[in-house]
Amino acid sequence: MTDSISRRSFLQASGVALGSTTIPAVSTVASAATAKALASSPPDVTRQLANYVVNSTWGDIPEGARYEAVRSVFNWVGCCLGGARHITTDRAIAALSEFSGSPEATVLGRNERFDILHGALMNGITSHVLDYDDTHLETIIHPAGPVASAILALGERQNTSGEDFMHAFILGVEVECRIGKAVYPSHYERGFHITGTAGVFGGAAAAGKLLGLNEQQMVWALGIAATQSAGLKDMFGTMCKAFHPGSAGQNGLKAALLASKNYTSSDHGIEAREGFAFTYSDEQDFSQITDNLGGTFEVARNTYKPFACGIVTHPIIDGCIQLRNEHNLNSQQVASVSLRVNPLVLKLTGKKTPQTGLEAKFSIYHASSVAIIRGSAGPNEYTDSTAQDAEVIALRDRVSAQADDGVSEEEAFVTITLKDGTVLEMHVEHAIGSLERPMTKESLEAKFSGQAASALPAEQIDRIMAMCWDIESLDDTGEIARASVPG
Amino acid sequence: MTDSISRRSFLQASGVALGSTTIPAVSTVASAATAKALASSPPDVTRQLANYVVNSTWGDIPEGARYEAVRSVFNWVGCCLGGARHITTDRAIAALSEFSGSPEATVLGRNERFDILHGALMNGITSHVLDYDDTHLETIIHPAGPVASAILALGERQNTSGEDFMHAFILGVEVECRIGKAVYPSHYERGFHITGTAGVFGGAAAAGKLLGLNEQQMVWALGIAATQSAGLKDMFGTMCKAFHPGSAGQNGLKAALLASKNYTSSDHGIEAREGFAFTYSDEQDFSQITDNLGGTFEVARNTYKPFACGIVTHPIIDGCIQLRNEHNLNSQQVASVSLRVNPLVLKLTGKKTPQTGLEAKFSIYHASSVAIIRGSAGPNEYTDSTAQDAEVIALRDRVSAQADDGVSEEEAFVTITLKDGTVLEMHVEHAIGSLERPMTKESLEAKFSGQAASALPAEQIDRIMAMCWDIESLDDTGEIARASVPG
Repeated sequence: MTDSISRRSFLQASGVALGSTTIPAVSTVASAATAKALASSPPDVTRQLANYVVNSTWGDIPEGARYEAVRSVFNWVGCCLGGARHITTDRAIAALSEFSGSPEATVLGRNERFDILHGALMNGITSHVLDYDDTHLETIIHPAGPVASAILALGERQNTSGEDFMHAFILGVEVECRIGKAVYPSHYERGFHITGTAGVFGGAAAAGKLLGLNEQQMVWALGIAATQSAGLKDMFGTMCKAFHPGSAGQNGLKAALLASKNYTSSDHGIEAREGFAFTYSDEQDFSQITDNLGGTFEVARNTYKPFACGIVTHPIIDGCIQLRNEHNLNSQQVASVSLRVNPLVLKLTGKKTPQTGLEAKFSIYHASSVAIIRGSAGPNEYTDSTAQDAEVIALRDRVSAQADDGVSEEEAFVTITLKDGTVLEMHVEHAIGSLERPMTKESLEAKFSGQAASALPAEQIDRIMAMCWDIESLDDTGEIARASVPG
Repeated sequence: MTDSISRRSFLQASGVALGSTTIPAVSTVASAATAKALASSPPDVTRQLANYVVNSTWGDIPEGARYEAVRSVFNWVGCCLGGARHITTDRAIAALSEFSGSPEATVLGRNERFDILHGALMNGITSHVLDYDDTHLETIIHPAGPVASAILALGERQNTSGEDFMHAFILGVEVECRIGKAVYPSHYERGFHITGTAGVFGGAAAAGKLLGLNEQQMVWALGIAATQSAGLKDMFGTMCKAFHPGSAGQNGLKAALLASKNYTSSDHGIEAREGFAFTYSDEQDFSQITDNLGGTFEVARNTYKPFACGIVTHPIIDGCIQLRNEHNLNSQQVASVSLRVNPLVLKLTGKKTPQTGLEAKFSIYHASSVAIIRGSAGPNEYTDSTAQDAEVIALRDRVSAQADDGVSEEEAFVTITLKDGTVLEMHVEHAIGSLERPMTKESLEAKFSGQAASALPAEQIDRIMAMCWDIESLDDTGEIARASVPG
């Protein structure tokens, strides 16, 4: 919910169109009839997407999309390694490993190998379990998880080249984000976790590309994806949140496999009156799927979380870290910290005395304190023990915050007063990780290695990072998977 | 759609309450806020269901429920055998068998054995692929598929006794039908195929019972089911329709397996503002879940299709078969057939010259013709070759039909005029297979053996039927699965 509200307001404030030509809500028996009448008009977006994905060539993908796609996959692999040892992953494996088929797909950062369907599930789970992955800001889809988890597993089985992998990845992200844009925000507000519900289309399209589906089979793959679309926002804060991209990757892959054997679906799974868009959402804007398809690339608008918490606190954390680093601060020097933020930020993250790591994600006081003390706000800063740490608590209690309507959601003002009377000030217009200030290669590497350290030794991490940066030239992307196996 | 419209009108005409105390529609941004306010009031139905399922004992189940449950499972096994050789089944197996784990679960009527998750998927598909299974009239859920497919597979692995199997089956049907009643018809009218969306809860509850989940784990199993709920009506007429109960069985089983290892979900997956009922439906009546829970049994209201087509044509078929049998008719004797039916029947099934088996399902002319010529309307009467059969076409063209507002949907008037001038008349008030005229043991057996003949020899069919009637006394329900493997 945090992400939902802040992102939508952010995009509206930024003048980003959220879809203008919408079709009226389908919500009552009466209006269902209206919608049925309208059903003849929607364009055949399922076939248009299928046609596009099937006929796209690597040469059609511009450099900008390729560049951001590599960064997306790099970030995703790091997140998978960060979540590899999480208890959520352990329990999913404990429950399902007995039912796996031939071990063809690696769980990144672990010794287990499963059949490709279970492999996709597990890597989708690990990549999202720390809430630290990537964000397509316009839809708040976390795009890499459902797509990369499906095709890393399939790619390992098929010895897929880096180029083919990246091509399929870019197309999968394109499909899930465009479908997401066609129903966001109405769909999200109904209660659907869009990373799961739209993600399954991305997994299907990407896996279908690697399987070499023809246009009709790709239409079926999207249809079989549509009829598996799932994921509820009520699951936020439980192990099921991470299950959503995993399940989307697994079921998207399953859809493509079924379609490859001519298992049929409707030809209009997305746009039909009783298809995905009308059934799962009260508003639809199909132009978001078709406008300039092949001319723009959603992956180029992907962003990565520099901090392991909701995006509204990121400007504050960024400002505190910058002041800390510039002035080489430690917590003993700090007399007080004063924050000035948009009112929404305080509403969402105004928890004064968080007791657990999860509660700390909803506290700008905690965020500010760990940023100054540690110079980072990764998963280690959101553990129960950090929330209980005496130094963190002591500084946290010297942080005050003020809501100011004149401050936008993406900016923040930080004032640190030192015990010697010095006053340090910082105005962050756009936090690191935003589209305006993307994470640098170095910050992505720091994030990657910080996460991966929970699973692997440093030399191994460096080897995997190098492979990921160079993924386009790999003969077989399975090399990345195999390189991630411990010891 | 056929079933939807006819059933709802039928139930309303019969004075069956469809849920009176509903919560207003959640369909726009504005009313979402209203719903959020309301979200504090819904009872904790997820926990109430979990508590009920976990604590229910076999002794709590009355004879009437046990009786109809055995008939439900008997009918389901017959349908599985009928669909075992269908091309839909062949393609699903071709696509997914390579990814199966240890062969612990039989596909009824075939030689393949898969891991229990894939086994559940396949038996759910076969049971529904001929549209010939069972119907819980109040929700038009086909209840056996998602539940029985999950626990036949799990039961084979666990050597589950007949009593435990039937107990879990009855509870699974209870859970899926009560959840279905809480959201029907609004949920169905949005576009969801309720056998898939509600079925996954039934599979989870039944499998969870056999796994011995505690109350909290059962809450999680229902939550993990909720966040996998899927199935679109747009898929009707394609292979995906049968995929829905299969997938519901597979995913329900997966939910229970995950919960058994303490994979967590929300505690309010059904009733939360962003849980199943509000997200997947515009109206909710939670009293349908809680009222007299444990005191009534939805399985006791299950019905079985005597004819392999939409339920609105059943009174006509029934009347024609009765006249044929009473008067030993053949098509050469018949000068003309005149039908008088509710207008909806003609609207839905008024196709005069169907060219294929599928089209024939939407033709009362075809239905009447095959009923008189063959005395049945099973899957063999809905093949392409039957639709093209010269004798069937010749008689079909002598059938006329008249819409009459004075005729209810569940009745029909049939008049057959013979070439010798004799006029035969029949008024069917309730077709065979309705709650008022349930199929007899003999007619269920004829349906079973008629379907199973496509997969197995007669002696083997008789052995399986005997086992199914006696299922409560089996030490291991896996015996049924093993007995169904072709010679």
